[in-house]
Order: sequence, then C-alpha cells, then structure tokens
Amino acid sequence: MELQTAKGARDLPPEEKIIKNKVVSTITNVFELYGFAPLETPILERYETLEAKYGAGAGSDVLKETFTLTDQGGRRLGLRFEMTTSLGRYIAQNPSLKLPFKVYQVGNVFRDGPIKLGREREFWQCDADTIGTNSMLAEAEQIALVCDIFRKLQFKFIVKINNRKLLDGILMQAGITTKPKEALIAIDKLEKIGKEGVSQELQALGCDKKQISMVLDLLSSKYNFISLSKKINNPSWNEGRDEVQELFRYLTALKIKKFVNLDLTLVRGQGYYTGTVIEAYLKNNNITSSIAAGGRYNNMIRGLKGEDGLEVPAVGVSFGITPIMEQVKLQTKVQQRTMAKVLIVPLNTISKSLQIAQELRSNGIATDFVLGKKGISKNLEYADAVGIPYVAIIGEKELKKNKILIKEMSSGTEQLLLLKDVVKKLA
Amino acid sequence: MELQTAKGARDLPPEEKIIKNKVVSTITNVFELYGFAPLETPILERYETLEAKYGAGAGSDVLKETFTLTDQGGRRLGLRFEMTTSLGRYIAQNPSLKLPFKVYQVGNVFRDGPIKLGREREFWQCDADTIGTNSMLAEAEQIALVCDIFRKLQFKFIVKINNRKLLDGILMQAGITTKPKEALIAIDKLEKIGKEGVSQELQALGCDKKQISMVLDLLSSKYNFISLSKKINNPSWNEGRDEVQELFRYLTALKIKKFVNLDLTLVRGQGYYTGTVIEAYLKNNNITSSIAAGGRYNNMIRGLKGEDGLEVPAVGVSFGITPIMEQVKLQTKVQQRTMAKVLIVPLNTISKSLQIAQELRSNGIATDFVLGKKGISKNLEYADAVGIPYVAIIGEKELKKNKILIKEMSSGTEQLLLLKDVVKKLA
Repeated sequence: MELQTAKGARDLPPEEKIIKNKVVSTITNVFELYGFAPLETPILERYETLEAKYGAGAGSDVLKETFTLTDQGGRRLGLRFEMTTSLGRYIAQNPSLKLPFKVYQVGNVFRDGPIKLGREREFWQCDADTIGTNSMLAEAEQIALVCDIFRKLQFKFIVKINNRKLLDGILMQAGITTKPKEALIAIDKLEKIGKEGVSQELQALGCDKKQISMVLDLLSSKYNFISLSKKINNPSWNEGRDEVQELFRYLTALKIKKFVNLDLTLVRGQGYYTGTVIEAYLKNNNITSSIAAGGRYNNMIRGLKGEDGLEVPAVGVSFGITPIMEQVKLQTKVQQRTMAKVLIVPLNTISKSLQIAQELRSNGIATDFVLGKKGISKNLEYADAVGIPYVAIIGEKELKKNKILIKEMSSGTEQLLLLKDVVKKLA
Repeated sequence: MELQTAKGARDLPPEEKIIKNKVVSTITNVFELYGFAPLETPILERYETLEAKYGAGAGSDVLKETFTLTDQGGRRLGLRFEMTTSLGRYIAQNPSLKLPFKVYQVGNVFRDGPIKLGREREFWQCDADTIGTNSMLAEAEQIALVCDIFRKLQFKFIVKINNRKLLDGILMQAGITTKPKEALIAIDKLEKIGKEGVSQELQALGCDKKQISMVLDLLSSKYNFISLSKKINNPSWNEGRDEVQELFRYLTALKIKKFVNLDLTLVRGQGYYTGTVIEAYLKNNNITSSIAAGGRYNNMIRGLKGEDGLEVPAVGVSFGITPIMEQVKLQTKVQQRTMAKVLIVPLNTISKSLQIAQELRSNGIATDFVLGKKGISKNLEYADAVGIPYVAIIGEKELKKNKILIKEMSSGTEQLLLLKDVVKKLA
C-alpha cells in the first residue's frame, strides 16, 4: 500500500514547524501585548450553526466548500470554514460577557475546495477580534497590532484600508440601491476581471449603463478621497468619511500612518462587513496574497441569533499563516531541524552523562543525548545533519578532572571546560 | 434558533484557555529541553491510512469511533483518532530521515464515542516520540521528561511502568500461546471487571482453567519482581527482565527512580506495544485517569508499510491535557481572564494615551486600552471583572507634569508616577 496524505493536507517537518511556531508565537505575543485574551472554539460545529451564518446569498459558496459529516447519533456536523462563526456563536451563547471582549483564536480551518500553490484544504488561522464597541479605536488598535507583528517579523508591508460606508455612498451616488451587497461582490473583482467584467456582472444585477459608468468613474484613480468628498454627498458617504478621518487621527497618534493606505477599490469578499475593511500585503514581493485581513462586522452576531437579536458591533483581523511562513522562510539563512543546542556523546560514561544532561536541562539548555552505540564521528555527522550547534563529548579521563570536551560544529573548535563553564557558555 | 456546540465539543473561555496555554507550553518547553523537534501532521487523513493501522483485530473498535467524511472528489477521509498513526505514516513516507528521530506533536484528535465527564469527542494530545532506536535510554529519557513536566506543574504523581515481554513471559509460563494479544486485552481489564470477568474472557479465547488460574496467580500481589524472576524462566520473560533492570539503572542515574513503580498488571489497551509501557497518575487524587501514557511500539510503522517493511523501533508518550488542566485549575488561586497587566483610561488625552500604550507595549507590558466613552468607575469595574491588576488613569493635568496615576486593583493604592517609573513598576 502506498501511503499518502489526504489531498490538500500536508505534513510540516521540523524545519518548517519551527518557523511556524516562531510565526504563531510572534503573532500571539503581540495579541497579548494589546490585551487580547485567548479563546478556543471547536473544529466540529453543528451544521445548523454554519448554515445560520452562510445559508443565504453569497455565503452559500462557503457551505459548498464546507466538509460535512455525521456523528454516530445521526447529527449533522461541519468542520469550521473559518473561526468567526464559532466566535459569533460563543458570543451569542454568552450574553453576560463583559464588553468590550477582546479575544484571539489560533486553530485549524478546513475548505473542501480546489487546491493550488499556497491554497490548502486544512490550514491555520490566527484571529484577533474586538466585540461590543463602535469606537474606531478598535480598528486603530488592530491596525497597530498588524504593524507591530510585521515589524517584528522584519517585513516590508502595506496595510490597505477602506470603509463599506464609502462604497455604499458611491453606489448610492450612482443610484444603485437594489442588491448593493451583490454589487460590491462584483466590484471586488475589479482587479481580477477588469472594468468589462464588472460591467457585465452589474448589468446582470439590473444596473443600467449610466449607473455602471458612474460607479466605475467614481472608483477610478482620477479622484482621491478629498476630491470624491466634494463630488459625493449622502448620509452613507459622510458617515464613512467621518469614520475614516477619525481612524487616521488615531493612526497618526500611534505613529503608523506611514504603513496605511486608503484604497477605495478594496471591498473584501465576505458579505458581512459593515464598515472598515483592511488588508495587509508584502511590498514588492512575489507573494501577492494578503498576509492579514479583516474589518468591522456589526451584523454577523445578530444574524446568528436570529432577526430579533440586538446589534453586536465587532471588528476582527485574521493572519494568513501560510504566506507569512513563506516570507519568513525566505528571510531565514540557517535552516533549523531541531531546537537542541547541544548533543551529549557519552564515552562509557552513561550514568554520569545522564546527570550532566539533566544539569544542562535544568539550566534551560535544550540538550540531546546519544541513544545508540555509534562512534563519535557518526554522532558528529548526526549533529551536523540536524543542525545541533554544539557537541559535548564526555570521556572517562576528562570526567575525572570534572571536564567536558565541547565542540562547536560551525567552526570545529574544541574546548575542555568545567561543567559550570559549559552552562555559562550554552545558557 | 438555539445555538449550541456540537455534542462532545466545547468552548474554552479565556480563563480556561489561559490555563491550557500554560499547560501546553510547560509540556512543549520540556520536550524541547530534551531535544525533541516539533512536527505537524494533518487532522484529515485518508481513510485507507487509518484502516491500515486499525483494520484488524482489536483496532477495529477504533475505526468504529473514527469520524469519517468524503471530500468533493469522492475520496474517503477520517479525522485522526490519535496522532501516532499520522507520525507512523510520516516516518514510512520519509525513509531518508536521520535516526534516531526525536519528535513531538500537539494537536486535536477526534473520537465519535460515548461522552462522559472528562471524555470528549474533540480534544488535544501532546505526544513525544523517539523513532529508530532500541536503546532503553529512549524510555529513560521519556520517563525523565514526564517527571520534569509534572514537577514543573507541582503535581504529586507516580509513573507506573511495565514491559510487554514480562507479560508475554507470564502467558508463556501459563501455556497460553494462541491469541496472546487478545489475552492481554482481557488482562488489562483486571481492575475494571475483576478476576471473574477476566477468567470468562480468557475462557472465551480458548484458555483452559489451569492456564487461567496460573496467569491470575502470577499477576497477584503475592509475588514481586524478584520472586517472579525465580518462578519464571523463558526467553520473553528474561528479555523483559533485562530491559527493566537496564531501565532502572538509567532512572537511578537520572535521580527519578523514586517516582517510578514497576506494576506487572499494567497492560495498556493498544495492541501495538511491544516492550515497555508507562502510565502516570496523580497521587491521592480524585482525578483517577492517567495524565500521561505510552510505551514502545516496534512493529507499528512496519505494519503501515506492509508486511515487507523493516522493523522501525519506536517509543512514545502522550499527555492527557484535560485531566492535567483540571489539576492545574484546582491548584490555581487567582482566576485570570486576560493576559493584560494594565488598562489605560484616557481622560480627554486619547492621542497622548495611545502613545503611552505603545511605549508600554514596546517594553513588553501587556496593555489594554479603554475603547468606549464610559467613566472611570465603569472602567475600574471592568478591570476588576476581567482581572487586570493595574489601571493607568491619564488626565490632562497630570500629563502636563509627565505623570500617570497608577491604581493597583488588589489593594486600591494609587501612585502618581513618571512614565519611566510606570515601565519599571510593570515590566
């Protein structure tokens, strides 16, 4: 039998998992620095919960790509497509939570869709969400943590932002009032299918030629935010304009304005965004997919509770672990296959060597220990192959003088050191 | 619509997830101190892979509790029941790996079985495995890391060990040579169903009365290891005896012998163990399920490769996150709902306060920031409710003197401090 991974699922060997751990801990450490608390929701969700969010309109594409299964009790289940639905369910089920609730999640999500490079059926997401406030400070804080994370990873990046209210204002200005959600989904494809394609989709939605050409004109690069604000005047645009201006005041105070660009063509596919949307990209890079994305979704949790629920304002951002890992890999010079700092090679000194290993470990030094009966040269080869930087050779003669031979693998230099000096050197 | 989690799946709110993160990082830090490298295998596995391991004999119970699903391409998949199968597949698929391969995994596993307290359908495992060596040092090292982890968690615990070769030797001595695997599975139930029940099961396997009474006699508490070694003399027993004695020499050198008990009635259900088995328990505790368990499984990976594969010796240990978390909860005096150390309350000083927040964060101080327009008392209530230890009130007057009012929530004491002194106090 030929063994294989499931299609779209893959193993991460140590050299990749070490990078992933570094990426995830960088992200979650910053989440915690910004006061976000960890939450865990399950991978298995009742299919009804997923349907409640995705059942209608554009969301049904999501349901099509949701892995479904049935438990032994005949209950229909799904593997979560992303983590926001589970968060929404958690919030809806816990009405006594103290708000604002700032929370983060890390975990696997699953999509039974087509596979291509960088697009898998099982992958991780890292999300931070702020629930229960309409303050633009929530957006500002999330954009700040995006910038902090990518600066810590030494990325060159740009954060694009937009506001759905501005887009709605543009549609309103053009007189497109029926199916605005669907119209935005068409506009979102501008870069992908061009003006022609978008025109056709808008036409199919019932927009007339004048409306379509006006929308495309307003979205073209000949206007900037200020000139558009002179051309457009309706409640939605004005509200969006005020929000964006408030947000930029905070971004200036946070000294991150230079990383952020307002981009009026940015829509983001998900139907549930209601205000700010953000997407972060690497600058001048072959990795063109977004490395973080999110926005404000004030209606989603109400939607899960049913129509009589109260509005629960929410802002979230999600990090794309796969493209971030790709970039970190490119920046990493030395490939690590182990976290061990030293390999202990006992030469007829197993008992004493085991004690020395424990001494090093109790000083926080990651220590590997030769388990076989191979000779020194084989063990040096092993240390070299897996990338352990030091080898400690513990022989009987040296032990009598309380000394250990330390070999630095990169330079080949050897030192005969007392145990306490080995601790100092490696700690 | 009433929202619910899937049966057997549950949310971990921040106060529990913070404990889980602490448990998992304690475990994985020790794994790395012992030179184990991280590996990630997917949750989705091809059903054929799971069948290859579990298809025959006792394992088919496992297949019954495996969640199965089908992708859009019609391929049959399963959610992993535990992580050892995926590890075995990975090893079998990567024949050029440098051995010994010391590796750890953390992740979700799924079981579509009956639910009871502490038994869920979706839960986490943390495994460490040593692949490619027959040395008893592999067992010794894993028992040492078990002890280190539980000492770091301040548990009172005991590690029970046994060796399948000793059990095989006992069966051989009693003349039970057909279906020894099934006989062991019956013996494993000794504590649960008593001598009577085990007798019946052995009888059903075709053992005669004399054989049954001899096995039960040899397993009774009237003999210890030394007296049994005088009564039993066959290759399997003798090999097991030598292994156990070698293991205890290492445990003595590692200074952990006092935590380890040889228990000849310990079987562990899984059919794939071939030598040492271990199980760790809390001492004098209401939590009676094992908190870590594992053993040597030299045939499993060969089994996955088909009958013509070479033997790949392996030893593994798996930690039970749920009972470990329960115990840590009992030991934890102050419940944390956030990792934030300070909440900033700006009083008409938003811009400057945002800058101060960034300054604290850049010094590694987890900082929350008031997002609404509520007054001081509401914010103090919030800090109290989520357990943020300090509140920083930033008013215009104080800012002019470059000072911040810091309130310690536990004592209620207030101090007016310069920013640099706030950093010193909270860092």
